[in-house]
Amino acid sequence: MMDPLASPLLTDLYQLTMLQAYYERGMTQEAVFEFFVRELPRERGFLVAAGLGPVVDFLESLRFGEEELEWVRSSGRFSRDFADRLAGLRFRGSVDAPPEGTVLFASEPLLRVTASLPEAQLVETRLINLLHYATLVASKAARCVLAAKGRHLVDFGLRRAHGAEAGMLAARSAYLAGFAGTSNVLASARYGMPVSGTMAHSFIQAHDDETGAFEDFALSCPSEVTLLIDTYDTEAGAAKVVAVAPRLRERGIAIGAVRLDSGDLCEHARRVRAILDAGGLREVRIFSSGSLDEHRIGGLVGCGAPIDGFGVGTLLATSGDAPFLECAYKLQEYAGRPRRKRSEGKATLPGRKQVLRRHTPDGTMAGDLITLEGETGAGSPLIVPVMRGGRRVAPPEDLGMIRRRVAAGLLSLPAHLRALGGDPPYLVEIAPKLYELAARTDLEAAAGSR
Amino acid sequence: MMDPLASPLLTDLYQLTMLQAYYERGMTQEAVFEFFVRELPRERGFLVAAGLGPVVDFLESLRFGEEELEWVRSSGRFSRDFADRLAGLRFRGSVDAPPEGTVLFASEPLLRVTASLPEAQLVETRLINLLHYATLVASKAARCVLAAKGRHLVDFGLRRAHGAEAGMLAARSAYLAGFAGTSNVLASARYGMPVSGTMAHSFIQAHDDETGAFEDFALSCPSEVTLLIDTYDTEAGAAKVVAVAPRLRERGIAIGAVRLDSGDLCEHARRVRAILDAGGLREVRIFSSGSLDEHRIGGLVGCGAPIDGFGVGTLLATSGDAPFLECAYKLQEYAGRPRRKRSEGKATLPGRKQVLRRHTPDGTMAGDLITLEGETGAGSPLIVPVMRGGRRVAPPEDLGMIRRRVAAGLLSLPAHLRALGGDPPYLVEIAPKLYELAARTDLEAAAGSR
Repeated sequence: MMDPLASPLLTDLYQLTMLQAYYERGMTQEAVFEFFVRELPRERGFLVAAGLGPVVDFLESLRFGEEELEWVRSSGRFSRDFADRLAGLRFRGSVDAPPEGTVLFASEPLLRVTASLPEAQLVETRLINLLHYATLVASKAARCVLAAKGRHLVDFGLRRAHGAEAGMLAARSAYLAGFAGTSNVLASARYGMPVSGTMAHSFIQAHDDETGAFEDFALSCPSEVTLLIDTYDTEAGAAKVVAVAPRLRERGIAIGAVRLDSGDLCEHARRVRAILDAGGLREVRIFSSGSLDEHRIGGLVGCGAPIDGFGVGTLLATSGDAPFLECAYKLQEYAGRPRRKRSEGKATLPGRKQVLRRHTPDGTMAGDLITLEGETGAGSPLIVPVMRGGRRVAPPEDLGMIRRRVAAGLLSLPAHLRALGGDPPYLVEIAPKLYELAARTDLEAAAGSR
Repeated sequence: MMDPLASPLLTDLYQLTMLQAYYERGMTQEAVFEFFVRELPRERGFLVAAGLGPVVDFLESLRFGEEELEWVRSSGRFSRDFADRLAGLRFRGSVDAPPEGTVLFASEPLLRVTASLPEAQLVETRLINLLHYATLVASKAARCVLAAKGRHLVDFGLRRAHGAEAGMLAARSAYLAGFAGTSNVLASARYGMPVSGTMAHSFIQAHDDETGAFEDFALSCPSEVTLLIDTYDTEAGAAKVVAVAPRLRERGIAIGAVRLDSGDLCEHARRVRAILDAGGLREVRIFSSGSLDEHRIGGLVGCGAPIDGFGVGTLLATSGDAPFLECAYKLQEYAGRPRRKRSEGKATLPGRKQVLRRHTPDGTMAGDLITLEGETGAGSPLIVPVMRGGRRVAPPEDLGMIRRRVAAGLLSLPAHLRALGGDPPYLVEIAPKLYELAARTDLEAAAGSR
């Protein structure tokens, strides 16, 4: 069975059709593609670039296995020669990109691929598939982190994420953006991030009485236990927690937290806090969940709700208010000549780009300039070498390092963007050289098509 | 490496924590869980149930491998006994559900699991993960099919789908809903559905001239070719197609279609149709793509645009206007007693349910009654046996059969829902017996917690 997570057939048919034509016409010179977001959704003031690690893994391991080649041969769409070419195809090109976790904006390349045209073309679909979603969730997660102002966040998104890989990538992106961990066991096992969890309503319901359910659950928990108290009546649930705590303490079990999952979370949290405090459980934390996103988290933090942590699920893993980014992987140069598309509303600027970022003396981001690679000017270049000759130029980055990069990036955002305001947009300028190159490219194209 | 698509660790940590408690307390009696959508998004008047096939595959193959058991043993969270229990755990329960492809509404079970409590609990996360997304996309795709009024639809969603599995499931759900096929090669290879594709802008751009690109592409295409004509100027592109057609015809190559991907598609389609017709290419079809969904397709069909087919990508695979469903997998019965949750705004009705659907004499759906399993009354029962003792009761359904079921279901929708109107909502009644059972359950629970 071909593995969707690794198979080169997880692609659009036209990539293969074009590859056959490229090979037959000998169009195998160097191509440069860039991946970028055309414009930010109204609901986003910045992006957090993510997915580079998984993309490099994909490129390093790209190959057609026997099953895939058999499909190509038997499809009736391709020549035998073509299947033979695919058998030997590896990604031997270069990748340049901002390091994973960099804060970015529209039009700024998240990735540049420089490779033989067939190699650079073939990888388009999966590369977009990975980068788009990982960046989408990291960007959403960063907003939750900013709204939570230091409170504990946990990814609860797996069940409503769009399939298995989305659940994995969402956990990874959320962690990079500053979440404390995930409820997703496999993501924890694979990526080495903290895993945590509470209990479900079904556990309570399966018991004839709620107090008994709390005790049963606590007795089976090796570490600190979190009890879900809203199955029937939240405040009554809190009172039962107070009642059961001494019995558990006698057996050496500490209640770490209670979870609220429904109703007016701000009001319930206050009442529950008062009940717990009056019952001598000042150290028991309050954790909440249920349709949370940066807006609701911000509201709860703003109203002074005594909530210590948030589980964020559906609206994180689906990026519910902006479930996709207008992004593209576009040919910018082929065979040494800049290229561009001029389709209405979707025109691109040609050439290999660099982004120079300026900061104010206190370290706040002050504006970006998108210019041609190799140009210097005010600001630090964001785009750095990632792969050469089909191999990483450095070992994969540790997730902790990427996490620290995101944290530093969020700290350096202008204050209104850090407060999740969108206006004014961050200043991104396009160097005049890029427009000049575009005009020259158009002139050459006009000459070419005469 | 543990496979996210198959590993039982693709779950929330609390499932494992609860399982350990269930085993330790001997809570392994029969549990009944139902999966349903609480309410439809404003943008949806009906659902098309999908994902049952993949869910049954998952349940039949559920087992902990050595790597997974090693994680459980070494996590420090679980007892050795528990890991041993997991080693022997299989899904041996029953599943009842409406057949895949059934048109459904809020509150109606998409699936019922009847199994030993640990088995029924453990599968929750992945079961929701599969059913939610497959149903989300099938429901969106069905709207596109209705809007297209018989025109050809192709899934282009892979690149912006949320990860690899989303791309696979989206292709499958779209096909079930009536799409003609997908651009996703692996989905075609795995599910046996038609695959199709055109060409990308990069192919045109990599050539110094557009006409040369058309010729090069056509010469490498074994079957009918579709040419993308909007890279620089759509109408000029159409004129080049007319110019190149005779040369291709001499070499035995027919141009099947042209693709438009930008600008005012209605206006461009009219002009391109006129250019093609005047050039003797009446048989060349016009295919369009670019941010399409049921609304834009409906608009293009309504304005009389001479468009023969549509590629639908991002807004299909992300269900862009409604990227998630408010759904839940809830315990309805345990150890022979009905169970319910009463959390604010999230209360459930207990018991094993059946849905009876009535039709008018002409076959139009006239209303559903959600009642208890085994109750009879006016209407045909939608929920049927799917698994018994952990095995399918019948071989997996062929996708063609599910496709025909969806087509019949869409035909039988009330006219205003078929026209994508939402008001009035379809009539779904709850049998009084269910409310009586809920009241009785609450009384028993109150007695139990005294």
